Amino acid sequence: MVVTRRHHVSTRGQGDAHDLTAFVATAVQDSGVAAGTVTVFVVGSTATITTIEFESGAVADLNRTLEHLAPRASEYQHHLRWHDDNGSSHVRAALMGPSVTIPFADGALLLGTWQQIMLLELDTRARQREIVVQIVGD
Amino acid sequence: MVVTRRHHVSTRGQGDAHDLTAFVATAVQDSGVAAGTVTVFVVGSTATITTIEFESGAVADLNRTLEHLAPRASEYQHHLRWHDDNGSSHVRAALMGPSVTIPFADGALLLGTWQQIMLLELDTRARQREIVVQIVGD
Amino acid sequence: MVVTRRHHVSTRGQGDAHDLTAFVATAVQDSGVAAGTVTVFVVGSTATITTIEFESGAVADLNRTLEHLAPRASEYQHHLRWHDDNGSSHVRAALMGPSVTIPFADGALLLGTWQQIMLLELDTRARQREIVVQIVGD
Repeated sequence: MVVTRRHHVSTRGQGDAHDLTAFVATAVQDSGVAAGTVTVFVVGSTATITTIEFESGAVADLNRTLEHLAPRASEYQHHLRWHDDNGSSHVRAALMGPSVTIPFADGALLLGTWQQIMLLELDTRARQREIVVQIVGD
Repeated sequence: MVVTRRHHVSTRGQGDAHDLTAFVATAVQDSGVAAGTVTVFVVGSTATITTIEFESGAVADLNRTLEHLAPRASEYQHHLRWHDDNGSSHVRAALMGPSVTIPFADGALLLGTWQQIMLLELDTRARQREIVVQIVGD
Repeated sequence: MVVTRRHHVSTRGQGDAHDLTAFVATAVQDSGVAAGTVTVFVVGSTATITTIEFESGAVADLNRTLEHLAPRASEYQHHLRWHDDNGSSHVRAALMGPSVTIPFADGALLLGTWQQIMLLELDTRARQREIVVQIVGD
């Protein structure tokens, strides 16, 4: 059994974080699928989905590490190609990946209490994001 | 068809690695599911699951890179929030993600010979970890 | 319903990138599975699969960041174990993970226009790679 849900989020540019847990939990509950996995996938190559303790300090710490890893102001070959300024966004997104897959049972996500599903915008400008929530199970 | 198995592991703190391959392989074999995917997911936001050639040198090399990327002794905004000392754990876990998804066929994991499934503790203290092994297939 | 496809790619060593999108899209379309998830998994512990805007600039930028993160010429404990020279490969692969999971509906991958599925070789020598494309759905 497969149920597909879509979710749209307006972001404010690089480092902007959104907690998707409530949307995903409700989608799973409403799907009528008792047990399986839910894949939360962001369409596009300059954002990521991961899990984190969703509080502003931990999100800021992650953004600081990403800035160290692929600095926004550095020079990127991607900029030369398109006269773009989001080379750092592409590198960060390819490293982190576009999705997480979470198991659920009895209609409930098997997350920890302090473990939330986060969309992290990595692009250098505000974006309208489409997230696909794919529920596969019994 | 969905089969859920849980596994518990006691860890000794940041950098402690555990090979989960035998447990996952047995869970798949015993499930009676012939082909599909198995998602190996760690509950909590300060640990990760990945694949690696499970030998102590490669694990030490990975830990060294993680220490360079998000040093344990650095200052983190997460510490200010909770008077915790595990900001490095949260950053490393969000970057690496909480799970891997492995395909299987004829009841056997399609891993390489030198490719094992590893739980890597990222928290700064010993933890009791719960791992969910979610088998989805035919 | 589960459909397993295998794909083989010859690579030219560290940093060599291959676009798998067309193969995966055709595999999904030909499978007769309408909706579900496809897991694209590389067998072995020194390569990765992720999504990226597949153009040579972005790939070069990613490779530069990986070289900064785990330099090829650095000393690795893995080298002492096997007299190997691919410690950087193991570290990069464990950080990035062996697979991506992509949702599909109506027989089509739900990727963005500029979002491709990439195999990135991380080993220090040319390799023959086996990729498993596992389709799970209705």
